[in-house]
Amino acid sequence: MTIFSKIIAGDIPCYKIAEDEHYFAFLDIAPSAKGHTLVVPKIEVDYIFDLEDTLLAGMHIFAKKVAKAIEKTVTCQRIGVAIIGLEVPHAHIHLIPINTMADMDFRKKITISKEELQEIAEKIRENFV
Amino acid sequence: MTIFSKIIAGDIPCYKIAEDEHYFAFLDIAPSAKGHTLVVPKIEVDYIFDLEDTLLAGMHIFAKKVAKAIEKTVTCQRIGVAIIGLEVPHAHIHLIPINTMADMDFRKKITISKEELQEIAEKIRENFV
Repeated sequence: MTIFSKIIAGDIPCYKIAEDEHYFAFLDIAPSAKGHTLVVPKIEVDYIFDLEDTLLAGMHIFAKKVAKAIEKTVTCQRIGVAIIGLEVPHAHIHLIPINTMADMDFRKKITISKEELQEIAEKIRENFV
Repeated sequence: MTIFSKIIAGDIPCYKIAEDEHYFAFLDIAPSAKGHTLVVPKIEVDYIFDLEDTLLAGMHIFAKKVAKAIEKTVTCQRIGVAIIGLEVPHAHIHLIPINTMADMDFRKKITISKEELQEIAEKIRENFV
């Protein structure tokens, strides 16, 4: 069971943003920006391009809804997307509020309190439609 | 007309990888890795999350086919995905062959000759199904 499957199952706590039948979104706890969110499929697939077309397509439509909710919550020019996935063997889309190209840097980590993560998650949840 | 629309129209030359009714893929001429490819929709939309769901979904399914062709051509652990789009106002997906997290760094540019770009493009085209 991957760490993301444990989060989805509720065995590991998370700052949940949204879920539906196939996908789950929650805040990255080591974010590169306020509102940095991860979107994962509920099934355990390591590599995103191993998802069959329908699941891959649905994941990006779900991610779009999450991105729109983040945009309403956090001041930014847009939401950047990154899929790398060499660290956790469970496909995940990074949604990162950005203002410049340099904001898409995973080595950049912001300092953020649990209270702030909680507060941002609540606001994004409210803005998720 | 964006620079990508001019590329699609053939007004600016490119190392073309593939196209269908809605999408177009070509090599990034300032690549971060050999095989670094851009996938764009034929319609001019600046922000990827402004694409309507069907076009967004189709773009990622098309990108998956391109990614599979790059994988067959270039030695790498997988294909990373990035969508930033603050430089050209025409939505584009970066597909970048990666071996480590650090490979997803846009400040990193490799040196590559036109002959090599041409050769890689031909091979990826042959592997595109």
